[in-house]
Amino acid sequence: MKIFHYTSIEAEDVPAPAEGVKVRWLITEKTGAPNFAMRQFLVEPGGSTPFHTHSWEHEAFILYGSGIVVSNEGERPVKAGDVVFVPPDEEHQFRNTGEEELKFLCLIPLQK
Amino acid sequence: MKIFHYTSIEAEDVPAPAEGVKVRWLITEKTGAPNFAMRQFLVEPGGSTPFHTHSWEHEAFILYGSGIVVSNEGERPVKAGDVVFVPPDEEHQFRNTGEEELKFLCLIPLQK
Repeated sequence: MKIFHYTSIEAEDVPAPAEGVKVRWLITEKTGAPNFAMRQFLVEPGGSTPFHTHSWEHEAFILYGSGIVVSNEGERPVKAGDVVFVPPDEEHQFRNTGEEELKFLCLIPLQK
Repeated sequence: MKIFHYTSIEAEDVPAPAEGVKVRWLITEKTGAPNFAMRQFLVEPGGSTPFHTHSWEHEAFILYGSGIVVSNEGERPVKAGDVVFVPPDEEHQFRNTGEEELKFLCLIPLQK
């Protein structure tokens, strides 16, 4: 069993086209995870993840702050306590439109 | 894409031997998840999940409150912001030893 505070994991810069985004890889294959990884994203006010798509799903939980999630269906507001499920192959983007840091967990399957 | 606040999902009683525990199944196969499920557990002060084991892992994130996690190695304190990785086949129990509700996310692989 491994127990640690999220702040003990380094927050790494996410390269462009992300803007003002950092990520902590909280649980990975190195932790011993066999099936999926837990990451925490930190988006500064005005920052955003790329509008992009991929073959795997996201299971996200907004921990702090507020913003919008963009899809091909438009923009939807999110705030702390919201759950976001992005199916495989659906375009998506997280934008921090608030005045505080937007912090969320985002889990993905591990690549086999 | 699906976006909803966690409170929109009913918190169901977890039967004994759990004590004072409720669960919200936030993301499941019904949501469209292909690989893993997101649940939120609510443990009242003095409550606990069973000390038990199973063949799948837990990836947990403490959202609120404090308590202890029990394993064969003993008891360790946890608090909001802690990450808990329980490998497959390791005995574990979450106990709320605080005075407020203990609330955590706990993700598991879907059974195939």
